[in-house]
Amino acid sequence: MPERPAATVRLVEESEATGRVAAIFADIRATKGIDAVPNFWRALATSADHLELMWSRLKAIMHPEAEGRTGRLDPLTREIIALAVSATNGCAYCVNSHTAAVLRLGLDVEALGEVMAIIALFHSTNAIAEGYQVVPDILPPT
Amino acid sequence: MPERPAATVRLVEESEATGRVAAIFADIRATKGIDAVPNFWRALATSADHLELMWSRLKAIMHPEAEGRTGRLDPLTREIIALAVSATNGCAYCVNSHTAAVLRLGLDVEALGEVMAIIALFHSTNAIAEGYQVVPDILPPT
Amino acid sequence: MPERPAATVRLVEESEATGRVAAIFADIRATKGIDAVPNFWRALATSADHLELMWSRLKAIMHPEAEGRTGRLDPLTREIIALAVSATNGCAYCVNSHTAAVLRLGLDVEALGEVMAIIALFHSTNAIAEGYQVVPDILPPT
Amino acid sequence: MPERPAATVRLVEESEATGRVAAIFADIRATKGIDAVPNFWRALATSADHLELMWSRLKAIMHPEAEGRTGRLDPLTREIIALAVSATNGCAYCVNSHTAAVLRLGLDVEALGEVMAIIALFHSTNAIAEGYQVVPDILPPT
Amino acid sequence: MPERPAATVRLVEESEATGRVAAIFADIRATKGIDAVPNFWRALATSADHLELMWSRLKAIMHPEAEGRTGRLDPLTREIIALAVSATNGCAYCVNSHTAAVLRLGLDVEALGEVMAIIALFHSTNAIAEGYQVVPDILPPT
Amino acid sequence: MPERPAATVRLVEESEATGRVAAIFADIRATKGIDAVPNFWRALATSADHLELMWSRLKAIMHPEAEGRTGRLDPLTREIIALAVSATNGCAYCVNSHTAAVLRLGLDVEALGEVMAIIALFHSTNAIAEGYQVVPDILPPT
Repeated sequence: MPERPAATVRLVEESEATGRVAAIFADIRATKGIDAVPNFWRALATSADHLELMWSRLKAIMHPEAEGRTGRLDPLTREIIALAVSATNGCAYCVNSHTAAVLRLGLDVEALGEVMAIIALFHSTNAIAEGYQVVPDILPPT
Repeated sequence: MPERPAATVRLVEESEATGRVAAIFADIRATKGIDAVPNFWRALATSADHLELMWSRLKAIMHPEAEGRTGRLDPLTREIIALAVSATNGCAYCVNSHTAAVLRLGLDVEALGEVMAIIALFHSTNAIAEGYQVVPDILPPT
Repeated sequence: MPERPAATVRLVEESEATGRVAAIFADIRATKGIDAVPNFWRALATSADHLELMWSRLKAIMHPEAEGRTGRLDPLTREIIALAVSATNGCAYCVNSHTAAVLRLGLDVEALGEVMAIIALFHSTNAIAEGYQVVPDILPPT
Repeated sequence: MPERPAATVRLVEESEATGRVAAIFADIRATKGIDAVPNFWRALATSADHLELMWSRLKAIMHPEAEGRTGRLDPLTREIIALAVSATNGCAYCVNSHTAAVLRLGLDVEALGEVMAIIALFHSTNAIAEGYQVVPDILPPT
Repeated sequence: MPERPAATVRLVEESEATGRVAAIFADIRATKGIDAVPNFWRALATSADHLELMWSRLKAIMHPEAEGRTGRLDPLTREIIALAVSATNGCAYCVNSHTAAVLRLGLDVEALGEVMAIIALFHSTNAIAEGYQVVPDILPPT
Repeated sequence: MPERPAATVRLVEESEATGRVAAIFADIRATKGIDAVPNFWRALATSADHLELMWSRLKAIMHPEAEGRTGRLDPLTREIIALAVSATNGCAYCVNSHTAAVLRLGLDVEALGEVMAIIALFHSTNAIAEGYQVVPDILPPT
């Protein structure tokens, strides 16, 4: 059986990063409290500009405390949203990464099962609503 | 300009529902504390079997208290997941319905903005992960 | 409340079609046994080449009898597949069009409910399989 | 080249299942006439409640005969719908599983090619309809 | 027939915008050379932080000249990508907005037809590749 | 860790192809200037009719020069659209294949980063537009 091919670009090694890329890699490790830069950021690092744009945005939204601000949602809820989006999109890398995050933030496997059940339930209702083209009737017009 | 067509099936009127369908309509109103049965359920009611299957499952997952059980997630978090799935799927009816629900459960427009920002952010990262076919590296193999 | 905007291109009127476009419009009406060319084909007609490519392909796959060939699936099953794809993609035009087709081919509203229930069910299982990243284990390697 | 990671949760072994989970595992094997419980159900079994909800729903919709009821669609058509949804969603596990099912129910590789051609065709038309935002015009308003 | 409901949040009027929101609205009008702030940005303005994050990122990527930088792709190619993503996602607002942009940048209706034909073609091939779970074989491993 | 399963059908070997399939395989190699027939076409070859339909359409749209016609878009822009669609759909085979194509046509890794940034950006805006159900306001009604 064939194996899954690697990424379509050569990932930037942490040891070869310099300048702006090295600084962002260091900020990723520090902000997330991890030892290695995940593959996602090493792929993005093939374009320093776009690495910076993506990291600065993710940091602002997912790590507001690191910038002295407070989000309205708690960190676990934020990661649950990320997992719901990723499972809905069927993104393997993203499901892997955000499942790791929700488990690290204290969700256990049983509660993860409830998250999955809710995600799955609303895929059903979404398909029914689209399949019958039901017209919105709940939220009053703004 | 043309208007959006109605649903592809004739919605069952509450006044014409009898037997099992009438009982489920009554349970929907009571469990959700609403006065009118939403269009979604009136479309599903064209098939009593499938109305029952969908409602019993939604009730078990989203209204466990109504069945004397307790979910692991709180009601607002459950509805935020529903909204994240619906926005990701681009389901107009569902976005309308679950936005109404999160607002009713106390989320304000500013916090809704944070939910949307998180949803949008992870659509970005999902697209990057897929676009480069980045290989999962975070969660250790189970 | 604002109305839904019309298509992003001006639809070609049947009365203004000439040459190749007029011939394809006539073939669409004859092959499908309808009196008016649906909006979909009138939008495509803004590019005669691509109208021809799409119609010749759709005719070959969905109306093989019109070309003296026989498909392996019956017409209703073909349209049910089209509806399942369209509901999954959430395409309003397509759901409307293929629901009309399955009803015309004899499916009643109760059986349409079963189609929807199956579509909705497998959206659930798809989301669970993606959400846990379950590894395929059923079909033996080819 | 890296390998594909396993599921994000440890699958429940058939030998370690007890109580309700063991009973559902037995029902899955009996209803489907298979010797081993597929990975999908072993992942779901990390939450007994949600395993039960999903299995009871799938059984009701896909194996109505096992419950003394008759569906309106035949088993092959049901599985073809499942395959169409799964291919549209790009769910690897699901495509693998439902392809196995349609082959087991008698579809040969040539007819599978027709199913794929129909699925692919309507992805094209869906994209055109969305890309031009064509307004529905076929089904009369209900 | 029912009308399409308005957005789920009340759009911020240009006349009521103050401070940071007013400044961003002015920058949107100036950078894009338009007279009115589109609904998209007026919806985002319900959360000033997230309006700023999204606009600053869109400006950096789509209007690099406004920041004294040069993108690698020309403006029309950038908008064609935006349209391809939007048609693929089936996002009505986005298709409307990016079709307006490509037409403004000089694409005519015939060439738009070619864009649509390419988008539609690769939806077909994507569905086939997913439907058969074809293993990548072209790009050499990195 | 388990490996990724192979395709769901046995791929047709180039050496075993005869008649129409062999002729199409030869045309694919000649038109694309490659030595081996990609897996995608070898899977499609399990149904000669559908192989022919798909190849003739792809050739007409992506290789018009081979048929003595000229497309309105240049070959690199066409492949960028294909990549945008494939990344949006999360199709691994397709991302791999079209990334190879854009690199072969001269895009470098830095410019590929810009393509990805644009794709990712518009996934964000699409999610916001869907998440708030913003009503189209830009293109004037046709």
